[in-house]
Amino acid sequence: MERVERIGVSLDRKLLSMFDKLIAKKGYQNRSEAIRNLIRQQLSTESLSNPRTSAIAAVFLVYDHHSTKLMQKLIDLQHSHLLQTISSLHIHLDEHDCMEIIVLRGRVDEINKTAENILSLKGVKLGRVNLAPA
Amino acid sequence: MERVERIGVSLDRKLLSMFDKLIAKKGYQNRSEAIRNLIRQQLSTESLSNPRTSAIAAVFLVYDHHSTKLMQKLIDLQHSHLLQTISSLHIHLDEHDCMEIIVLRGRVDEINKTAENILSLKGVKLGRVNLAPA
Amino acid sequence: MERVERIGVSLDRKLLSMFDKLIAKKGYQNRSEAIRNLIRQQLSTESLSNPRTSAIAAVFLVYDHHSTKLMQKLIDLQHSHLLQTISSLHIHLDEHDCMEIIVLRGRVDEINKTAENILSLKGVKLGRVNLAPA
Amino acid sequence: MERVERIGVSLDRKLLSMFDKLIAKKGYQNRSEAIRNLIRQQLSTESLSNPRTSAIAAVFLVYDHHSTKLMQKLIDLQHSHLLQTISSLHIHLDEHDCMEIIVLRGRVDEINKTAENILSLKGVKLGRVNLAPA
Repeated sequence: MERVERIGVSLDRKLLSMFDKLIAKKGYQNRSEAIRNLIRQQLSTESLSNPRTSAIAAVFLVYDHHSTKLMQKLIDLQHSHLLQTISSLHIHLDEHDCMEIIVLRGRVDEINKTAENILSLKGVKLGRVNLAPA
Repeated sequence: MERVERIGVSLDRKLLSMFDKLIAKKGYQNRSEAIRNLIRQQLSTESLSNPRTSAIAAVFLVYDHHSTKLMQKLIDLQHSHLLQTISSLHIHLDEHDCMEIIVLRGRVDEINKTAENILSLKGVKLGRVNLAPA
Repeated sequence: MERVERIGVSLDRKLLSMFDKLIAKKGYQNRSEAIRNLIRQQLSTESLSNPRTSAIAAVFLVYDHHSTKLMQKLIDLQHSHLLQTISSLHIHLDEHDCMEIIVLRGRVDEINKTAENILSLKGVKLGRVNLAPA
Repeated sequence: MERVERIGVSLDRKLLSMFDKLIAKKGYQNRSEAIRNLIRQQLSTESLSNPRTSAIAAVFLVYDHHSTKLMQKLIDLQHSHLLQTISSLHIHLDEHDCMEIIVLRGRVDEINKTAENILSLKGVKLGRVNLAPA
């Protein structure tokens, strides 16, 4: 079991009152829980700004499945040794287009480099990378 | 079979030469294919700026699975009558955190409204919505 | 002078230790100051998700100044009654292109609507809206 | 005077008809003008993905001006030898907060690195970097 510490925080009455309204709206049980969540979010964001952080990414793509080279590249990506593919989800949109979501692990810089390569391929209509520290 | 039209486009020699280099790098077979892709991308982006467009969205979330209310809300979302959930992907990150990707269809404004509700819930550490016209 | 309150926050030793490292790196004097800043950021983000919030926006544009209609539209915008232009900054990039940053006040929804109109105008090469609650 | 070339583009009748509607809405005079603009936008985006591209950036910041170290860091930035500051715009928001927009030139990677440093400083509430190729 983890040791719990208790710290004191001083803040203006007005700021506290606005914060209390927000945490009630969001459904937090108490201020500690809400502040812990803020701290965890900040640590996440901070760690992703380091290119060598281990991260997990969901690469979101819409592409024309007639671009056969693209499908090959996506498969190559999923077998690359730098990145470890965990899972992927393929959705048929219409006679031309597919949506594909590829979840992979790797370093932030390697994920971004690979994603840039994919998103600039012919046939890709939309693409985005969603990152979380792993 | 669809009817194909042929149009003429005039552009500076310098711009054309930069474009030719780019399409070679990306692997397009010819200028028509590259320009068709640009036009399709612009039509996609444009249509998503209309709140009433039918869209498909991948909602990307990292959350603490001890926040039981959140899991209930996510399930409620997937059974809401406004949005039609197609698929979802759940990945166990560590003892606290899960990544969840929910693919759903609906109007752009309804997707955004729901996503905002989810992303502001307690326990959500990271979240983003990826949209494509459906 | 504003009344200051003091609240207690409990958190795991490990989370506290990571937070302490982060606030030292960023140069905060103490935990209270860092937590107040986190709370203020969250209140800012939250308030911008309400379309009726009063906001201040920096609209960032790169455009071809030969598109004379665009310049007229930008001037019209700056004299619109819904939005109040505070300031603008115009930078000559090269023989074709200008960068323009327009700072304006208004409701979030009005700012976004106007920005969308501008960014879809002919001649606009790049554009983005940066929002802050006012 | 630049030499103008004329190329042919083939596309489905349906795609052409949707494109024609879009360019009428945006106010382009003809298809060539609209396609040239699409090509220029793609070249811009592409060039910004290269970390060594020369770029111009508008760094957008909201901060508490009582954080005196921050103001010093911003001034240091504007006198750094890697980045060349062109202009900056300072707006008083309220008794606590300022908005500052700093326009600078430099390589994409240097701009991003500096921006990351600034945005992680204590006292910064909101921040974003807007990039354009120079």
